[in-house]
Formats: sequence, C-alpha cells, structure tokens
Amino acid sequence: MILEHIEGPWDVKNLSQEELKTLAAEIRQFLIEKISVTGGHLASNLGVVELTIALYLAFDLPKDKVIWDVGHQSYTHKILSGRREMFDELRQYGGMSGFPKRKESPYDSFDTGHSSTSISAGLGIAQGRDLLGEDYAVISVIGDGALTGGMAYEALNNAAHLKKNFIIVLNDNNMSISENVGGMSKYLSGLRSGVGYNELKRQVSETLLKIPVVGAGLVEKISRTKDSIKQLVIPGMLFENMGVTYLGPVDGHDIKAMVKTFKEARRMDHAVLVHVLTKKGKGYAPAEKNPSRFHGIDPFDIATGKSLKEKVYPTYTDVFSKEICQLAETEKRLVAVTAAMPDGTGLKAFAKRYPDRFFDVGIAEQHAVTSAAGMAAAGLKPVVAVYSSFLQRGFDQVLHDVCIQNLPVVFALDRAGLVGSDGETHQGIFDLSYLSCIPNMSIMAPKNLWELRQELEFAVCHYDGPIAIRYPRGQAYRGLKEFDASIEYGKGELLYEGSRIALLAVGSMVSTAEHVREKLKAAGFTCTLANGRFIKPVDYELADRLAENHELLVVLEENVLQGGYGLQIKAYVQEHYPKVQVLTIALPDAYVEHGNVSVLREELGIDSDSVIRTMRKAWAPLEDVMKAVESTKSECSEDAMMSAGQKNTEETARNGIIEEKEESK
Amino acid sequence: MILEHIEGPWDVKNLSQEELKTLAAEIRQFLIEKISVTGGHLASNLGVVELTIALYLAFDLPKDKVIWDVGHQSYTHKILSGRREMFDELRQYGGMSGFPKRKESPYDSFDTGHSSTSISAGLGIAQGRDLLGEDYAVISVIGDGALTGGMAYEALNNAAHLKKNFIIVLNDNNMSISENVGGMSKYLSGLRSGVGYNELKRQVSETLLKIPVVGAGLVEKISRTKDSIKQLVIPGMLFENMGVTYLGPVDGHDIKAMVKTFKEARRMDHAVLVHVLTKKGKGYAPAEKNPSRFHGIDPFDIATGKSLKEKVYPTYTDVFSKEICQLAETEKRLVAVTAAMPDGTGLKAFAKRYPDRFFDVGIAEQHAVTSAAGMAAAGLKPVVAVYSSFLQRGFDQVLHDVCIQNLPVVFALDRAGLVGSDGETHQGIFDLSYLSCIPNMSIMAPKNLWELRQELEFAVCHYDGPIAIRYPRGQAYRGLKEFDASIEYGKGELLYEGSRIALLAVGSMVSTAEHVREKLKAAGFTCTLANGRFIKPVDYELADRLAENHELLVVLEENVLQGGYGLQIKAYVQEHYPKVQVLTIALPDAYVEHGNVSVLREELGIDSDSVIRTMRKAWAPLEDVMKAVESTKSECSEDAMMSAGQKNTEETARNGIIEEKEESK
Repeated sequence: MILEHIEGPWDVKNLSQEELKTLAAEIRQFLIEKISVTGGHLASNLGVVELTIALYLAFDLPKDKVIWDVGHQSYTHKILSGRREMFDELRQYGGMSGFPKRKESPYDSFDTGHSSTSISAGLGIAQGRDLLGEDYAVISVIGDGALTGGMAYEALNNAAHLKKNFIIVLNDNNMSISENVGGMSKYLSGLRSGVGYNELKRQVSETLLKIPVVGAGLVEKISRTKDSIKQLVIPGMLFENMGVTYLGPVDGHDIKAMVKTFKEARRMDHAVLVHVLTKKGKGYAPAEKNPSRFHGIDPFDIATGKSLKEKVYPTYTDVFSKEICQLAETEKRLVAVTAAMPDGTGLKAFAKRYPDRFFDVGIAEQHAVTSAAGMAAAGLKPVVAVYSSFLQRGFDQVLHDVCIQNLPVVFALDRAGLVGSDGETHQGIFDLSYLSCIPNMSIMAPKNLWELRQELEFAVCHYDGPIAIRYPRGQAYRGLKEFDASIEYGKGELLYEGSRIALLAVGSMVSTAEHVREKLKAAGFTCTLANGRFIKPVDYELADRLAENHELLVVLEENVLQGGYGLQIKAYVQEHYPKVQVLTIALPDAYVEHGNVSVLREELGIDSDSVIRTMRKAWAPLEDVMKAVESTKSECSEDAMMSAGQKNTEETARNGIIEEKEESK
Repeated sequence: MILEHIEGPWDVKNLSQEELKTLAAEIRQFLIEKISVTGGHLASNLGVVELTIALYLAFDLPKDKVIWDVGHQSYTHKILSGRREMFDELRQYGGMSGFPKRKESPYDSFDTGHSSTSISAGLGIAQGRDLLGEDYAVISVIGDGALTGGMAYEALNNAAHLKKNFIIVLNDNNMSISENVGGMSKYLSGLRSGVGYNELKRQVSETLLKIPVVGAGLVEKISRTKDSIKQLVIPGMLFENMGVTYLGPVDGHDIKAMVKTFKEARRMDHAVLVHVLTKKGKGYAPAEKNPSRFHGIDPFDIATGKSLKEKVYPTYTDVFSKEICQLAETEKRLVAVTAAMPDGTGLKAFAKRYPDRFFDVGIAEQHAVTSAAGMAAAGLKPVVAVYSSFLQRGFDQVLHDVCIQNLPVVFALDRAGLVGSDGETHQGIFDLSYLSCIPNMSIMAPKNLWELRQELEFAVCHYDGPIAIRYPRGQAYRGLKEFDASIEYGKGELLYEGSRIALLAVGSMVSTAEHVREKLKAAGFTCTLANGRFIKPVDYELADRLAENHELLVVLEENVLQGGYGLQIKAYVQEHYPKVQVLTIALPDAYVEHGNVSVLREELGIDSDSVIRTMRKAWAPLEDVMKAVESTKSECSEDAMMSAGQKNTEETARNGIIEEKEESK
C-alpha cells in the first residue's frame, strides 16, 4: 500500500510514474470503501483523483493555494494532505467536513459549499498576494456545471485585469450534478470533441500567415493585429475574448500531461484557464454508469452499488414531486423551474411528464427567479423548486423582480431547516428571516405530508402573489393526519385545546411540539397546540386566542431567532398580554456544522426533550410539577424507559434520519 | 412641433424619415429642458432616443414587449407612450417614476431598477408567450455595463434553449455608469472598432471555402462542420458560441439601419442579439463630454451644464471618501472594492490616490463580495463600498463566503434608509434585516459626520471580522458633535439623561430622536436620548439601563420593522421590564415609492412630528400634557411658529434635501 505512507505533498512528489498510478487506484479503492460506509459525495471525487495528484505534483501546497469550487470534490485533496484517517467520521457530528474548511487544515485555503465562488475567491487571494508582495500560485478548480453560475462569469470578466499569474482549472466532466444545460455546455462540448485543437491552432496560425495572394486584402484585414488572428484561430476564444488565456483540453486522467500543462500555466503573467477533461465516477462501474445517482450517496453495497438504506416512507420531496404533477393536470398555467436540481427537488417526474413546462436553467438561482417572474408576468404560474440555502443566491431577485410587482411565483423551498451532513453552507436556517422582511411575500410551512399537498394546492390554485412553502429534508411527518382544516390565507390552525401552556409551532416544529405535548401529559399538563401554518402574514388572531387564556406561550420554529417567526409573536403577545410569559424556541445566532439532524437538534436545543428542559427553566410551575413527577417515576423505572423509547421511535423517524439520496451543490 | 402630436406608437409610425429626425431632436430638447428642472437620468436617455424610436417603428407596442434593463433609460419610451405630460412630476412623490412600472402603463412590460435582469425577465416572458400559444415579440434592451452582471450571463446561457424568437438589444455605449471594466468590455471594443464586420464575415466565409489546395487538410479540418466555420469567422462568436445569433454592430443613431436590423432579428426562430452602438449624452455637449456626471443629475443650467443646487455641507459619502483615503495612509492592508460605483460611493479619490489598492469589478456585487473575502483570506483588509439596496445582490456571498469564515471584510453601506427619487427598487430599507440574521456579522450606524469617521476607523483598524457601517444618502448630520465617546464593540452611547421617556435610536434616526427630544422639552418632558450605535450585536446593557428607570422606551430605526433593530429591543425589554412600554418606530412592511426624502419620511411616520404623534397616541401621560401645552400655545402663535421653523431648518437640512449627484444603476 502506497497510500498508507502518504502524509503530505512531499510523499506524493517522491513517487515514480508507476507508483502514482498505483496511488490513484488505491485512492479510488479507499474512497469507494469509506463512502460506502459513511455516505458522501462519490462520483465527483472519483473523477478528480488524477487531477488532484497532478496539482500536488505541479504545485507546492499549502504555500500554493487551491480553491475547490463547491468543494464536494475535495476528498482526494483531504487524503493527500494528511486527513486520511478522518474519513471514518466523514460528515459526522464532530468529524471531518465533506467540504474544505480553513479551520480544519492549512491545506484548505478557502471554504466553499455553494457553487461558482472559486474564481472570485481565487482572484481575491491572488490580488492579496500581489499587493502584499508574496509569491505563491493560486489555483481555482471549477466544474463545467459551476460555470453556469453568474458569479463565475463576473469573476472571469474581472480576471483579465490581473497582471500576475492566476490559474483556473476547468474540470469538465460534461455535467454538473445531473445533466448540464445551456449555451456554455454546448460550447464546451465543441471544445471537447475537437481533439488536437492545440495542434490545429498552431497550424492555422502559421498557415494563415503564409497564404499567398489568395483573397489578398482580406487576409491583410484579418491579420492587421495579433488580436484578430487570435480571435480567428484559438479554440478557447470565449475565454480568450474575455482576456483569459486558454490551455487545453488535457486528459484529466493523464497525470503527466496535466503536470506539464499546469507548469506551463504557472509561467504565465496573467490569468489562464486550463481545460481538463475528466470522467465522473471514474473507476467504479456503477458510478460511471449513473454518476448522477452517485453524486451524493447514502451508504451502499460496493458489489452492486445498491443503497443500504431502505426508504420506507415518502420524503417531503416525494410528496412535492407527486403533487406538482397532479396539479399540473388541471392547472395548465403551472410550470416548474429548477436551478440544476431536477433530482434533488423532485422535479424529475414533472420534467418527464411535462417537458415543455419544465425549465432547468443550470446552477443559476438568480436567473431561475427572475425568469420565473417573467413567466408570471406573461400569464403563467411558475413554481420555483429550490433548496432553502440556495435561494439565498436569489434574494435580490425575489425582493426586486418578483415581490415589487407582486407576481404570482410559488417558491417550493426544500431542505428548509437543518439538513445534516452537508453542514454550515447548506443548512436552510435563514429563509424565514430573509423572506419575512420582503413586502408582498407570503410564507407557509406544512406540519405533515398532507398539509404540504394542501399548501401547494393553495399556493398554485388559490393564491395570486409571491408565496413560499418551506419544508425540511427527509421523511415527511405522518402524524396529526386528522387535522386537515382547509387553508385560509394568513390563518393558523388550532390542533388541541388544553390549558395553562400553549404551544405555537410552524412547519417541522409542529411535530416536535406534539411530542412535547405528549410528554407533558404524563405530568398532568394538557397543553394547547396550534399550527401557525403561515409564517407571513403572522396570524395575530390566533396569537390573541392563545394569549387570552394561557399562562405560558411557547413559539417554535426551525430557523434562526433573529428575523424569524417567534420574535414577532413574542413582541406582540408581551405588549398586549403582559401577564403571559412567551418563550421562543429557535436556532441560535450561529452557523451549524455538519452532523446527523437528530444530533444537531439535541445540540441546538430544539428536540422535544430540550424544549421541555427550556420550558422548565423558564416557567416555575412546570418545573415544580415535573420534579414531583420525576421523583415518583424514578421509583418506577419502567415508565421512564417508556418515555425514552417514545422519543426514539416517534421523533427519530420524524427527523428524517433516513437520509435520502442527497443532491447538493 | 411634431412631439406635441405624439400620443402613442401609431403617431410615430406615420412620420417620414425627415420627420423622425426632427422628432429625435425635439425629444432631446424636451429631455434636456425637463430634466434641467426636475433632475433625473439624462445622459443615458439622450443616448437611446433613436434606438427607442426604431423600436417603436419595427415593433408593435404594447403588444410586443420591451424590457428596459435598469430602466433609467426609458424616458423616450415614456414620452412616446403617452406620458409626455407627466414629466413635470418626474420622480416626485405621487408623480411619474423614473423607471418602468407595470402599474404606470401597459407599455411597461416589466419593472426594472437593478442591473442585468432584463434578459432573464424577457426570456421568461418569451417562454410564457410560447406556452400560452401567443404571438408577440419580446425585446430586452441591455447596456454593455449591465452585461458585466452575472445574471445577464446566466440568462444568455439559458437563452440558447429557446426555439422561438427572442431579441436582445445590446445598447453599447462603451460605459456603464462611469468607465466600463473587464474582459467583456475589451471584447466589445474589439467588435466596435471592427467596422464592416458583417461584410468581413461574408467575405471570409466565401473565401475560406474557395482557398484551393494551400494548407489542404487543414481547411478540410476547419470546415468539417458549419459550426467550426462559424467559430472561425463570426465576430460575435462569444455570443454565437453560447447559442445566440449575433447581428451588428449597427449605428444606434441611424433609425433606418436599426429598423432594418430589428426586422431581420424578428424573423429568427431563436434568440438573437443585436449590437447597437450609441453615444451617451448624445446631442447635449456637456453630457457628451462628461456622461458620467450627467448620468443622474440634479437640476442644472442648460447653457453651462452647471448644477443649480449648491452643496453646502458634506454628504456622508464625502466623509467616507476622505476618511478612507486617510486610513489607507497608515493601514497599508486597506483596499477598496466597488461594483461599478466609484463616483457614487465616493471611492474616486481613493482610486486616484491608491490605484493599486482599488478594485472596480463592474456591476457584479456577488463577485465584489467574494473577491473581497478572498483578499481578506490573503491578509488584506478590504472595504466594500456599495449601496444598501445593491448589496441585496450579494446576500448569499456575505452569508456564505464572508461570514462563515468570519473574514474581516468591511461593508460601507451607502444609501441606507430612504433614498428618494429613485424609488422602490433603490430604497435601502432592508439591510438591517438581511444582515442582522447572518451569524458573525456586526452592524454599526453613525449618528453624524464625526461618528462615521470613528466607526470607519474602528472597523478598519480595530476590528477583525465582518462588519457593516450603514449611512444614508445626502448630507451628513452635523449636530451632536460634542458626543464622541470612543467606540467600544457592541456598545451604544448615552447622549442625554432625562426621565420618564427614553429614546433609543440608530443611525439617521438619532437626529430625528434629538428633534423629538427638543420638541418635547417645551412640553416639560426631558427625554433621555441614547444612540444604539451597534445594531448587531444589540447593546442589551444599554437597554437595561434605559428600561430600569423610564416608563416609555421609543426605539427608532430607518429600516422595515421586521427583522430589524427595534423588535429585538422590544421583545427583550417587555420580557424583563414588563412595566415599561416599548414603542417601535420603523418603516412598514411595504415598498416605498419615489419622492423627496422629507415627504416620504412624513408619509411613513418617521419624521419627528409624526413620531411625537405616535408617542402621544401610545402613551397617555404625554398626550395629556401635550394637549394642555397646545391649548396654551394656541393663544401664543409666535411660539407655534418658532416650533414650525425649527423643523424647517434643522430637520430638512439633516434629511439630505440637498440631493447630491446620484449614481444609480
């Protein structure tokens, strides 16, 4: 085993060409084995094994800085930079992140997670290097999919200014997460298929200058300046036209060829793009065959490639997927828009059934939102299905292009709340805040499977304005089925009437509140439970109703407190019902790292037991009664066990522990 | 006068070529005369007079839809669509907007304001048209400056999919608001200078095919497919490569040529880009000479071009401009970043003095923020100077690229709060909300000129993390100079100690609160006045101090209530000091249209008189005393007049009535 002896770049540099090949094979084996157990990003990582090795050979890490766009392809990099042994805890709470993290290693020079940021970050680092008079290489590695994101282009456009070296490695596997789309993709296809382009370029340059008098004035015109020659004969002219030198394409599985090209690139005194062709899933047949399914993957059986996690119940995504197809049958104006996530958002079935009404715009949330606004202005009813954390990229477009004109665009916000193993960059814990401050916006959240259907139908068929429905990753809650009051705009739903304590929750927290209620029953408290349903507008009448005849009001949401739901209720109820104590349960003002959602919920104090603990601390009557109950119960251990068991069965199921195949950028 | 008889497109279509020229001249005269009185966008509008006329001739408005990117160049369009007589109230409260508004006219097919949205919106409309089986033309008119914005590229990339007609008019005047930057700009220059390109293209195509045996195999290779020929010989290949047909360049002041090309474009069954060359400021010598100064302009003297508004006091922008230059002297790591607004943000002086440390990235807020994050990661101290409403475009980048890594990027947020005549799209009234929910972010706001200096120095020299300083458009407040407590992280500042009523304000509202305090003195109330200074973190100790010994706490901010400053204080104080009444003064959950800032403040209830009215309504003791005072005062009209006078001198000055030259996108 060569891999066992690799502790850093120096160990890679000492290997012979043959050994490097062996190393690549060993890394692939290692990745397949580890990810088959922990789950994680597989296909993209298998694709860049040689590319990463070549970077380690051609450059001097960590002095030289590599920025991995998106970052889910950085596993080989993590292996080669001394983190091999951390792969058993990959993406687990307290373990190694699946993305580059500066706080994790000096080899990670910039944190990534969302798409298309690496050229901006790399250019910034290069500019810093130059101003501070330092000397190191900066290399941004970006996939062809990420190149559909507008900010990559903003950065490319700006890179032309640089007077010193900056290297962009275009890792072109002809797909982003699933199939790639758009003009750029077509353009890259052209480059890819044109084998021998560099050779052609040389020949054409020479020949054009030699052409004798044929078309005389013409050639003179063309060759008037070097630039016009360049425009005529260089294959990567799209990049060259923007002032970035183009090198390639290079075989992304040929280490030697890449090292040579990288070294050539390093000698340039300006921005240069190296076009590298790789194969997603390379070296593992099931992943080569179906790279999209092996993009982000649950633990799987290596021999067959089959997932080891059985999906029993449908996820919210599944429910959305089905319902939107059904709604489209009757609502002919309904169209669906995704930013490169047809699988993850559940739009694949819709795309198949209604190909003309389906728009995959590439990794381009800004355009997704504003083109939906255009469609709405033209008379359609667009549903933009997008992950909560990715809509952050379209914030201005929601505010400026959809909501000022009050256009009927529906936002199906998947992965809202804690998402688990993808960590900080992907937690959907800000949407209630960034959407609540936007005028004309409405926001709903379903408590369970059936309510998602109701809300989607309401948004598509019965509401005429911008509206978001946010629902969490993972399994749809199947409790509380009997509560299916029809949707009335801006109105919540009273589920159980009790006394003294009222629980008012939205979305995923309704089931948590339900568990709180169940557990407090044992202590003799019959809590009132209400589903806020609408986060915007807030149902203040419901708040009145709860405040009027309770002593403690607990408001629960899976979002940061600041700018969210609870603070509004709290300020309102405290003002009008000074005798009512209001407790807000929400996420703290902090980023939340990767880990199993259940673990995170406990850590952050939003699981039912933590909520009860918080309630006891805040409200003495509860603490007194609970203490009394506990001292009785400790004498009867069976009861105590039952209470613990309840949590394990009910709550873990609800929390989406069954981590479905994840499509993340 | 031909212009007098133009009530709609039909009137334009009836004119002869000669009359069209006269019309163009009359429109220019009209624009110069009107804008010289009201102020507004001049240079961009003078540039597109013929372009707009040509669109009216070649297309059938309002059935055909024109989307004006940014929209500040839509004045001729407004004139030709029956809104000529509304120009006297241009950009005034209740009058005509300076931007396209669907609610204003059926000729305005999509609201714009921020840059680079038109291709997305147009593409969406075209897609809607096709699905609904309708038949009309969709034309997006975008400037070359707006083409540096990433979302324009996202849309271009996506436009290749369209199987029906969609026209993009590239209005290329070789500048955005000031000088244009980046690779795209260079590329367009190439196209522009290549006069006769269309002719060249035809010649080259023909000739290349005719070349006999010279370089035989080579030409065969090249011409293997039509596509490779296209790649070799078409000037607009950057666009063609992306699947968009390129036509042009066309002289943007030659109506006949444009009409011909537009009609040609209309016949295509896919997306087509027409490259039109215009001159900003065309026809008015001072604007041609200095188009940047005449982009957005105050009332001016037509003969000389000189502004009629004298600037007496410095604006916050001026203060920032000076201070950042000074700080840069000692803090060598300081660099400044702007997204195409060197004038508007006050960075011009810095750019001149420290050209190597100044980065204008084009209209590209996303890249501005993330490249600043890169610079910070490399060891620099970047200051991103940007308008509050434009940073919305970089929301995800602030959250994801700056704050997760806790990088020391300073955001100098100009135009925060109400901005006046640009209206809905430009009001900076959301930043406290969208920034407050981001972990690791800190936010400050200065009460006056001197505090902006202090805060900037603190942010640049004494703080190591992401921090924003938000300050309003217009004249810097010069009151309260004596209060200059040095900055302590997270701490506010007690200005005056009084009793019963405490006023706690941030930023621009400190001066308003000061006026409230002055006015209440007369009624015998000596209010306590505190400057929150930090919006994040909130100074809860200061809140404690105020709550402990007052009966009414009024919290004032120039931001929407939801997600802002006041609601946090309110929830906190009500919880811990149930006897204290808390009143929040903030902006309502609504967009705010154009109008003079003073008028808007009154309408929205955040000027000192409105605040007092609100306080009287909310708190009986004040109402009682004030009523008593008033009944006395009404007998002494002199006093009443003095009170009114006070408002006119103090408050209007502070509100930035002196509307400085505005740089808006």
